[in-house]
Amino acid sequence: MRPEEVRQLLEKVRSGEIEVSDALDQLQYLPVQDLGFARVDTHRELRQGIPEAIYAENKTADQVVAIARELLRKTTGPVLITRTSAEVAKLVLSEWSDAAYNSVARLIVLRPETESSPLGLVAVVSAGTSDSRVAEEAAAVADALGMKIERIDDVGVAGVHRVLAVQDRLHAADVVIVVAGMEGALASLVGGLTGKPVIAVPTSVGYGAAFDGLAALLAMLNSCAAGVVVTNIDNGFGAAVFALRMLRQKSD
Amino acid sequence: MRPEEVRQLLEKVRSGEIEVSDALDQLQYLPVQDLGFARVDTHRELRQGIPEAIYAENKTADQVVAIARELLRKTTGPVLITRTSAEVAKLVLSEWSDAAYNSVARLIVLRPETESSPLGLVAVVSAGTSDSRVAEEAAAVADALGMKIERIDDVGVAGVHRVLAVQDRLHAADVVIVVAGMEGALASLVGGLTGKPVIAVPTSVGYGAAFDGLAALLAMLNSCAAGVVVTNIDNGFGAAVFALRMLRQKSD
Amino acid sequence: MRPEEVRQLLEKVRSGEIEVSDALDQLQYLPVQDLGFARVDTHRELRQGIPEAIYAENKTADQVVAIARELLRKTTGPVLITRTSAEVAKLVLSEWSDAAYNSVARLIVLRPETESSPLGLVAVVSAGTSDSRVAEEAAAVADALGMKIERIDDVGVAGVHRVLAVQDRLHAADVVIVVAGMEGALASLVGGLTGKPVIAVPTSVGYGAAFDGLAALLAMLNSCAAGVVVTNIDNGFGAAVFALRMLRQKSD
Amino acid sequence: MRPEEVRQLLEKVRSGEIEVSDALDQLQYLPVQDLGFARVDTHRELRQGIPEAIYAENKTADQVVAIARELLRKTTGPVLITRTSAEVAKLVLSEWSDAAYNSVARLIVLRPETESSPLGLVAVVSAGTSDSRVAEEAAAVADALGMKIERIDDVGVAGVHRVLAVQDRLHAADVVIVVAGMEGALASLVGGLTGKPVIAVPTSVGYGAAFDGLAALLAMLNSCAAGVVVTNIDNGFGAAVFALRMLRQKSD
Amino acid sequence: MRPEEVRQLLEKVRSGEIEVSDALDQLQYLPVQDLGFARVDTHRELRQGIPEAIYAENKTADQVVAIARELLRKTTGPVLITRTSAEVAKLVLSEWSDAAYNSVARLIVLRPETESSPLGLVAVVSAGTSDSRVAEEAAAVADALGMKIERIDDVGVAGVHRVLAVQDRLHAADVVIVVAGMEGALASLVGGLTGKPVIAVPTSVGYGAAFDGLAALLAMLNSCAAGVVVTNIDNGFGAAVFALRMLRQKSD
Amino acid sequence: MRPEEVRQLLEKVRSGEIEVSDALDQLQYLPVQDLGFARVDTHRELRQGIPEAIYAENKTADQVVAIARELLRKTTGPVLITRTSAEVAKLVLSEWSDAAYNSVARLIVLRPETESSPLGLVAVVSAGTSDSRVAEEAAAVADALGMKIERIDDVGVAGVHRVLAVQDRLHAADVVIVVAGMEGALASLVGGLTGKPVIAVPTSVGYGAAFDGLAALLAMLNSCAAGVVVTNIDNGFGAAVFALRMLRQKSD
Amino acid sequence: MRPEEVRQLLEKVRSGEIEVSDALDQLQYLPVQDLGFARVDTHRELRQGIPEAIYAENKTADQVVAIARELLRKTTGPVLITRTSAEVAKLVLSEWSDAAYNSVARLIVLRPETESSPLGLVAVVSAGTSDSRVAEEAAAVADALGMKIERIDDVGVAGVHRVLAVQDRLHAADVVIVVAGMEGALASLVGGLTGKPVIAVPTSVGYGAAFDGLAALLAMLNSCAAGVVVTNIDNGFGAAVFALRMLRQKSD
Amino acid sequence: MRPEEVRQLLEKVRSGEIEVSDALDQLQYLPVQDLGFARVDTHRELRQGIPEAIYAENKTADQVVAIARELLRKTTGPVLITRTSAEVAKLVLSEWSDAAYNSVARLIVLRPETESSPLGLVAVVSAGTSDSRVAEEAAAVADALGMKIERIDDVGVAGVHRVLAVQDRLHAADVVIVVAGMEGALASLVGGLTGKPVIAVPTSVGYGAAFDGLAALLAMLNSCAAGVVVTNIDNGFGAAVFALRMLRQKSD
Repeated sequence: MRPEEVRQLLEKVRSGEIEVSDALDQLQYLPVQDLGFARVDTHRELRQGIPEAIYAENKTADQVVAIARELLRKTTGPVLITRTSAEVAKLVLSEWSDAAYNSVARLIVLRPETESSPLGLVAVVSAGTSDSRVAEEAAAVADALGMKIERIDDVGVAGVHRVLAVQDRLHAADVVIVVAGMEGALASLVGGLTGKPVIAVPTSVGYGAAFDGLAALLAMLNSCAAGVVVTNIDNGFGAAVFALRMLRQKSD
Repeated sequence: MRPEEVRQLLEKVRSGEIEVSDALDQLQYLPVQDLGFARVDTHRELRQGIPEAIYAENKTADQVVAIARELLRKTTGPVLITRTSAEVAKLVLSEWSDAAYNSVARLIVLRPETESSPLGLVAVVSAGTSDSRVAEEAAAVADALGMKIERIDDVGVAGVHRVLAVQDRLHAADVVIVVAGMEGALASLVGGLTGKPVIAVPTSVGYGAAFDGLAALLAMLNSCAAGVVVTNIDNGFGAAVFALRMLRQKSD
Repeated sequence: MRPEEVRQLLEKVRSGEIEVSDALDQLQYLPVQDLGFARVDTHRELRQGIPEAIYAENKTADQVVAIARELLRKTTGPVLITRTSAEVAKLVLSEWSDAAYNSVARLIVLRPETESSPLGLVAVVSAGTSDSRVAEEAAAVADALGMKIERIDDVGVAGVHRVLAVQDRLHAADVVIVVAGMEGALASLVGGLTGKPVIAVPTSVGYGAAFDGLAALLAMLNSCAAGVVVTNIDNGFGAAVFALRMLRQKSD
Repeated sequence: MRPEEVRQLLEKVRSGEIEVSDALDQLQYLPVQDLGFARVDTHRELRQGIPEAIYAENKTADQVVAIARELLRKTTGPVLITRTSAEVAKLVLSEWSDAAYNSVARLIVLRPETESSPLGLVAVVSAGTSDSRVAEEAAAVADALGMKIERIDDVGVAGVHRVLAVQDRLHAADVVIVVAGMEGALASLVGGLTGKPVIAVPTSVGYGAAFDGLAALLAMLNSCAAGVVVTNIDNGFGAAVFALRMLRQKSD
Repeated sequence: MRPEEVRQLLEKVRSGEIEVSDALDQLQYLPVQDLGFARVDTHRELRQGIPEAIYAENKTADQVVAIARELLRKTTGPVLITRTSAEVAKLVLSEWSDAAYNSVARLIVLRPETESSPLGLVAVVSAGTSDSRVAEEAAAVADALGMKIERIDDVGVAGVHRVLAVQDRLHAADVVIVVAGMEGALASLVGGLTGKPVIAVPTSVGYGAAFDGLAALLAMLNSCAAGVVVTNIDNGFGAAVFALRMLRQKSD
Repeated sequence: MRPEEVRQLLEKVRSGEIEVSDALDQLQYLPVQDLGFARVDTHRELRQGIPEAIYAENKTADQVVAIARELLRKTTGPVLITRTSAEVAKLVLSEWSDAAYNSVARLIVLRPETESSPLGLVAVVSAGTSDSRVAEEAAAVADALGMKIERIDDVGVAGVHRVLAVQDRLHAADVVIVVAGMEGALASLVGGLTGKPVIAVPTSVGYGAAFDGLAALLAMLNSCAAGVVVTNIDNGFGAAVFALRMLRQKSD
Repeated sequence: MRPEEVRQLLEKVRSGEIEVSDALDQLQYLPVQDLGFARVDTHRELRQGIPEAIYAENKTADQVVAIARELLRKTTGPVLITRTSAEVAKLVLSEWSDAAYNSVARLIVLRPETESSPLGLVAVVSAGTSDSRVAEEAAAVADALGMKIERIDDVGVAGVHRVLAVQDRLHAADVVIVVAGMEGALASLVGGLTGKPVIAVPTSVGYGAAFDGLAALLAMLNSCAAGVVVTNIDNGFGAAVFALRMLRQKSD
Repeated sequence: MRPEEVRQLLEKVRSGEIEVSDALDQLQYLPVQDLGFARVDTHRELRQGIPEAIYAENKTADQVVAIARELLRKTTGPVLITRTSAEVAKLVLSEWSDAAYNSVARLIVLRPETESSPLGLVAVVSAGTSDSRVAEEAAAVADALGMKIERIDDVGVAGVHRVLAVQDRLHAADVVIVVAGMEGALASLVGGLTGKPVIAVPTSVGYGAAFDGLAALLAMLNSCAAGVVVTNIDNGFGAAVFALRMLRQKSD
């Protein structure tokens, strides 16, 4: 469409219908306006490989469905709906019978990645059963985006042997996502055990001075294990998308 | 002195010099005022076994010396001066030639405990060399108060094998003081490795989101290892005094 | 099991079935992986004396029951379920008819400690009736773990005579747990009255600038009474477990 | 001056020089502009009885001297300069040889109150020697404003008997100013011991989780002793001025 | 009772039944324990004039009723129940038919002060209708304690003329309680307009960066009007009790 | 009314019924009290052009209706009710059948501005659908106050081309209101793209370390685009009123 | 330059040297890359009217000079250097003898706006002498950018008459910048007195719970005067630039 | 060494010198103690590829040199000393004449990576000149570890065209490190422009409500660009090490 307009402009330049200087003026204005954007939009999916996701909080069920429909039409990859309430889930599922709803992760996946060969192996390591909601989000998103998942749960630092026992599984992964609340120490421990890229996801699990995840967040940001990076509190989705960014690189 | 006054009052009661009801009036007033306090003062040292300590920050060198002189005269146990500046140290050392000055811990000890048999063994475990100032304070105070010290330094959680390698030394201690800054994860790790009482001391080591020890403090308060207790940031002194409270118990 | 594998490896070394150098390679890998862990698991209960506890928040009733069943099978000591909701309590009680449910403390105890001689005497001192939920958790957990409990309630610092009146009961205890919200001053007061180990538990009682327990937490961390240690906000459980760590020491 | 203008306007109304409606228009505009303000200025000192004070921080020595000169000319009561640096003090003292400089309180008093009968008795109670800078400011300001001062120092809550011993001195005062850093518990203790008005002044004394006075501030705001009020951190000046507000009332 | 025991001890001393030294021992122990406290308890009401109040939050309706019954029996002044829920109110009202329930202030008053001459005049000034809950608590408590109340509502600083219009009513009061949320500027304005004692009560009214009253609290603590004091957020009760402390003084 | 009183006073001056000096005394007192305020009230609407608005939170439906009735009677411009709950809306709509209720913005408009020529063009730019509640408030308030609105939604910074594509619409506006939650980066981007006045409104959209809008608020306050100003979190109303202040200026 | 490249491309299209489709490909890539930016750069100054400013903090004197030289060459408007240290000022002044250095505002102005007719009148209102550093920055920047300045200093809210006395000067301004530290109440007061656009600048003046400007910032964000906007703490520069954005609008 | 001990043990098993069961006992104890650690140490470098780094803050120059000497002897890769003061730098440089000292990054590199083929291309993108200290640390560390660096400076979001102009350089990189202070919006912008892995490093650049990097940190954690991860404030080192973790993966 818009490139069409540029083409028409160029045709006019060629035919002499329009002066070069006038065309120049129009071009200086257009590109950052419309021309590029269809292109950028297309590029976005191709180049970024980051799926469009709908953050359902603060949106009505109708809004979510409308945006999902739009994305399904205009893009080709997976469409994810995160933080879905029961109400949203119900409406979406009634709309698309093949929608996959993960109630633990509060995630709906439409049109998941179905490539035969996974992009890589993501170890999702969680400290305790209470963190499973976030770990599940990380795992389910990564799965929907075509990564293979290795779940390692309930290996909190209070029983260090539990992590030590799975060192080889950590080393076998391409990227390790560590999910922990409370004092969030697991990130440092795992970061010290493996040289793999470690993405730390603090959770809001805990009470009192956990301050809804602040304690874990600060701990992970200050990890004495060099080279551990951190996402927002409870952001399993973000960790999985970062993993996608990394593994797409590798598979290039 | 004051008990003397009560004795005189009682003698007067006995001799009939004073009425019972008048004596009652006086006694109802006295006790919470003066009578008890010489007693409490005496009791304080006997019963609490907590040494008088002078927190030198925000005090002039002259004030510190004056208070120390008073304490030396009125009590019999160790007198500790914490957070001494160079200036304070100089004046105190010129006053008492046998004062022991620990420049790392910024601690001066006057009249240290010299009991032949130590109260118990305190393991002082620190995460990194940067934490040594606080670890040294804990160790030096504990030493001055008659405990035996086991120093285990530089065993931060990023290299978990370092702590694992000293497990037996942890188990051999009567109480374990864990000193760590940054994310403070060492407290949870040690708390999970041993069933000994673990006192966690967060330090202000770190930068950025360490927020001068807040990250370590919050992490330690939220330790997933059950039964780890915490002191103020950089409070090696407090940890040692708590150890004294515990070990005095044991040696009863 | 795993030790079995090592044994088999050693048998093979002895029998010459395998070369020393190959065995060495295998051993370098194994130990930190699996070998030690059965051992550590066994050791954990023996050595730490810290009961397995299930933090029920953020877990489904089914998850709680499943974990409890596992712990009952694999360990021998008390199994505690903390922060139980009514729903969790109902399911657990229907599962184990002898489960003891303390609705104030929101605690369920399975297989409590029944040693004839208590490990020691724990004074649980609380500032006000509003703090009773947390004080009850501390007391109930300590009781379940084999300690004798002395409850001293409603002795907030606004009426200092109330604490003064129970000084002898404080001195009679082996460890004192102080539970207070609002300004948390009781910890300093008790810490100054007794030389016993004082564990301060801030509570979320209060409003406005109490900031859900932050005021009490900060106050307790800054106690001018030397050697007072602190747990997380509302963490009566943690204080009781620390008491266990201490008293096990004493009873060795 | 301005009242003069109104008078002239009224004269013109009387003489018929100006219409009532025009005068009305002018009056509706004037009053809130200038008319009232000379009046308010005069009233201010008479009615409020609150001395003009110069907060010297962030001001140059020259600015401070200029403002002081202005105040001495335009008002009749004491002029106080708070938070004076050494440099400011030097210049002010060279300017007014009778200026009283209190280097502990960092306060300069010009033209102090010299009424023969004091407004009342203010007890200034401080927790420790480190708080003396703030206690001194409260006391020196109260003194300069014509109150009688009773200093009660070093009665921190860790040795509760020290406060108990001075109960009668608390009861003898008209108002009690409590100055404390660290956990600030002294305010609650004093507030519980006496029914006198208690003004709590948190200080920035302490370290780590004292967060420059935040811990004491929060504690004092949450005092379980009903009816304790609080000033800004280190604001001994404010407490003394509030005492003035109260005692002026009483002496009416 | 306890004084009775002392009397008996003294009688025994007189009769020679007991040695002076033995009596001394007993007295050194007793006073701070029980002797003084009946006295202190009696004194408390007489001397402090601070009513017993029950903070109903975190208490069951049964606990509240039980404490209220106890206070009615053991004291003679007003008994206040603050922060009552509907449930608590219902039970209390069914118990004492003459209980006065103020649903705006969430306050129940039992046995209010009925002295014919009020202790003084308290102006309760509030910024907006949204603050009325807290202003009502201050006013209702002050009323129950025998003060006369002047309500001045809805005079927020955005329309400064509204406060200016009531200046004379401010000057007529003995003490001014300023209740304001959001930016809490009214305290500074009133503090600048009158020399009367001004007690600032921040409220949790507002949203976003009001942070549940933190903005108003900080503003009031930093008031540029000298001598304004502050209570906890939403603490109308505390302001009224402080007024009582002051006015009792005045009426002595 | 009050001006009437002044008029009468002036009449008496003219008629000689009252002395000039006595009239002067009365006038010095009156103006800041009552005289001016009817005037100020009138002036308020004329001069400020800021509509009276009722913040419905923490008010009962009855209170809201009463205040609205009062405003409708005493003023002539639009009356806005912000943050209306469903309950408030119901009552207001039953009272005034022509009330316009915007359920997204939770805004009720009574007597909207109906000037034929709008004051100017306000671009309301929002980052995402989740921010629509706040954007709608800004737009609906601006509309009710007589401004023309240009909505530009869903142009968050993650897809920068979306903003670039609407640059000309930004340049066409008289003032730009940027509404964004999460990291609030859109304000800086827009502030850099246009030289128009940019008002940034942080929203509470987000989770975890968004801390209910704090992240967006801080980001906007620190915008590297010079000259961006900020309102309270979720304060679409405030942004629209500021726009009114600006555009009234322009149209003068 | 780059536009030159586009021109050449177009010439080639016209001459048939290059196919329309190939040109299209190149154009889709170029525009967002280089083509537009010279243009945007030019546009930036023309369209935004926002002067380039150098924030000198964290930059070396040499870096500052280098950037200034660059800006002088490539732009035509004023070049401002903010937050200059003495060292930076010295080097800049030695470089450009006509540089105007304002040591209070720590501002250097190169090539100030010298238009004969000012853009408008900016009232810069400050609460106290301590705020003068920030007020001076706002005024000096506004002056350098071609606005006329009205300084109204020392009108803090504690003496409300001072602001009332200058109401007409507020009404005469096109925009009002309010600079205040401590509790920042002046912004609400001014915002209520005038309907002019009010930009509030919190300052870091104060101590204790002022928390380096946080108290004033929060207060201003929560102003009950509708339509007051806020800048970062101490950001006089930003307020002046926002004024420029507004007044350029007006003068269009 | 220790593996040597195991070998000897195995030799004894083979030779029958020791029983299998006794060997088993010893092995169960050893591994987690010493056996593994030489191995782990060796493995650490091999497997993790994370260089040993010395955080020089809070360490004496002598301590730094001693640790560096140890690391040079026991490892083979680069040894980095971060946050070096001038004093530390001087001593280190006098010790190792080939040490490379980067004064902007405050980094010393000993024995840098000298592999001919770089691990990958790291784009280090910074918002402003003030951020150069942190950007330089990221770049210098990455360089020392064998990565190729692409510096893209001064492309802050206020001039969005600057980033747009370098899009192709972003796409060409294997990993993008974004360094920004103030509002930290650059991370979201870059994260939206490219699908490459983006590591955001907040800096402490800014003032007032930047709160030493907190604003940027929160903004980056809440990035609306999916899959952006964050390091501690000013932690350029950590970002570079995470890049190493990633790129080692890729080059496997």
